[in-house]
Amino acid sequence: MVDVGPESAFEGAFEIPDPSSWSCPAPLRDRGRVVLGHGGGGVLTSELVERLFLPAFGTSETARVARDSALVELPPDVVHGARLAFSTDSYVVQPLFFPGGSIGDLAVNGTVNDLAMSGARPLALSCGVILEEGLELEVLGRVVGAMGRAARAAGVQIVAGDTKVVGRGSADGLYVSTSGIGVVPAGVDVRPDGARPGDLVVVSGPVGEHGIAVMSVREGIEFGTGVASDSAPLAGLVQAMLDVCPGGLGHGVHAMRDPTRGGLATALCEIAEASSVGVELTETDIPVPEAVRAACGFLGLDALEVANEGKLVAFVAREVAPAVLEAMRAHDHGTGAVVVGEVTADHPGLVLVRTALGGSRVLDRPLGEQLPRIC
Amino acid sequence: MVDVGPESAFEGAFEIPDPSSWSCPAPLRDRGRVVLGHGGGGVLTSELVERLFLPAFGTSETARVARDSALVELPPDVVHGARLAFSTDSYVVQPLFFPGGSIGDLAVNGTVNDLAMSGARPLALSCGVILEEGLELEVLGRVVGAMGRAARAAGVQIVAGDTKVVGRGSADGLYVSTSGIGVVPAGVDVRPDGARPGDLVVVSGPVGEHGIAVMSVREGIEFGTGVASDSAPLAGLVQAMLDVCPGGLGHGVHAMRDPTRGGLATALCEIAEASSVGVELTETDIPVPEAVRAACGFLGLDALEVANEGKLVAFVAREVAPAVLEAMRAHDHGTGAVVVGEVTADHPGLVLVRTALGGSRVLDRPLGEQLPRIC
Repeated sequence: MVDVGPESAFEGAFEIPDPSSWSCPAPLRDRGRVVLGHGGGGVLTSELVERLFLPAFGTSETARVARDSALVELPPDVVHGARLAFSTDSYVVQPLFFPGGSIGDLAVNGTVNDLAMSGARPLALSCGVILEEGLELEVLGRVVGAMGRAARAAGVQIVAGDTKVVGRGSADGLYVSTSGIGVVPAGVDVRPDGARPGDLVVVSGPVGEHGIAVMSVREGIEFGTGVASDSAPLAGLVQAMLDVCPGGLGHGVHAMRDPTRGGLATALCEIAEASSVGVELTETDIPVPEAVRAACGFLGLDALEVANEGKLVAFVAREVAPAVLEAMRAHDHGTGAVVVGEVTADHPGLVLVRTALGGSRVLDRPLGEQLPRIC
Repeated sequence: MVDVGPESAFEGAFEIPDPSSWSCPAPLRDRGRVVLGHGGGGVLTSELVERLFLPAFGTSETARVARDSALVELPPDVVHGARLAFSTDSYVVQPLFFPGGSIGDLAVNGTVNDLAMSGARPLALSCGVILEEGLELEVLGRVVGAMGRAARAAGVQIVAGDTKVVGRGSADGLYVSTSGIGVVPAGVDVRPDGARPGDLVVVSGPVGEHGIAVMSVREGIEFGTGVASDSAPLAGLVQAMLDVCPGGLGHGVHAMRDPTRGGLATALCEIAEASSVGVELTETDIPVPEAVRAACGFLGLDALEVANEGKLVAFVAREVAPAVLEAMRAHDHGTGAVVVGEVTADHPGLVLVRTALGGSRVLDRPLGEQLPRIC
């Protein structure tokens, strides 16, 4: 058992097994690290999967037979005409661990959230990892442990995976790619081009926390802040929102997006463009935590362009907004939900912000990211 | 239009657009290369997706609205109790281009084949790419062009994707992760633990070509050989095999695997172990091309441990074997199909090879890979 220190969040659910009992090529002295052979598809790969990934993911014994592809039973309420949601994301965040999370929970929550933004109930996840030779197995164990816990918290299983190893210097520790499939219930039609004039724009809580949390521990620009990543699975929150719509499941919820890379600004601009509508925001209504505001001032950033990993923005018909807001506020991940603006037929494709001083400015998508590799 | 030279396989289907008309951050002088901002989720990312990925993948205009997750219609013959196959793989092969293929077709064919090994018809693919800052857009264009062509050849669409960029030196050009979903038709039950005593073991053609093709162009060990990768999509071949089973769709096809990393040896050992059966091979019946045999002799390798990317091994009931073999030989990717052995109740978990000299040896799974990063 490797001591992972007091910051470990293993909670006893998953202990890193002692690697000294594993098969090793003869000249391998450094047993606690990833070697190229772990990516070769042979005995070493099997051991890594069986002793580290499967226990961390809580995979059942019957599901442990290595298959080329996992089999997923379709839930009984899926009938002719049902739609699957399918999403993929790669994660290259640096550092691998940051206040409030790690690349592991990010990889699970990010994909769960991409599915949820289509109104889907997540069915299953897959993960592919690219490991750098020499990576400590203890670090890998912490990451996959976080993935397993995040998947359980989101109520979804990681059913398929793949492991590759690249030489020293050809990756920053590890990269994770996760994909997910979900089922979009009949009647639900949430789409980025679905916003309509008259809709209200709702955000589920304070924005900017994830990006600032990662930046605060980035090499070269460390600064003190109490900000932790908001990384969280949003499928439950979305389900609660869809369930309460007075006109039926999801009726009146027109568009949703999780404002990750590029922040709220990018999410809103993309929906305004795709839907050919204008968006008018009231700056003072947008919840930005004081510590995020301070860090943005310090770094010269716009909080609306900073990434979130546990927030959503929804475009909902005015008549369903009260019920949806109430349902959001009753949910753990939506306690801070507020209306921040509305949709207009004027200036299609443009997002305007009414500032505190009574003026207005055009909100534009950033060209790239203020700081790369925050997810 | 970047000139990609006479070796280009673009066939006029996809031309790399001139990047000089794209948005660029002011100090960006080197317009033909990937910059960190291409992974930031902003305007640069959108341009890369819209101008390079979507045209290469042949994505329809209506599907181009950027969604957090793609929607996949379930085919009408999917009913209650149907099962989805779900698979993921990451690709880190070096070099990116090799005789007979590239990381692009490998990434598509590998995932299509993993789905097919469950007897599934592929429905949709996703791809996540991790790009190294400074990668030539022309190289990226050749890779995604190959992905698009491979997907069309396999009759499947790439419906979701993600792009991340890491700094110079943090990846070897690019890594690709692909995931796929497919539908397993009712009645089909192909599984790695499904082999039964009496089954015949069938391989779809000559083994060892992919691994030798990649090794032949690897830095430091280049050697002349006429061997090209066998990279190919096997879903059509599998469909043909399942269709002809006299007892009904897939009846009598018990287990399949594509012998990629770890080669035929690993695939057979895994099935023997999972099914608790013994396998007896006749060495002289295993098709190994002369050039592969020569290269293996030169490198000190066992051809049965060398990777394939367009072959499968199937365990089929003796009574269906003639029909299945005939169907395989009539298919482009199974012309070389032969019976190489049989399944016995003796020595469960062990694969024995009867050698040309009349002796027998135990075939074991390799510990790692003879050479890392061949896929």
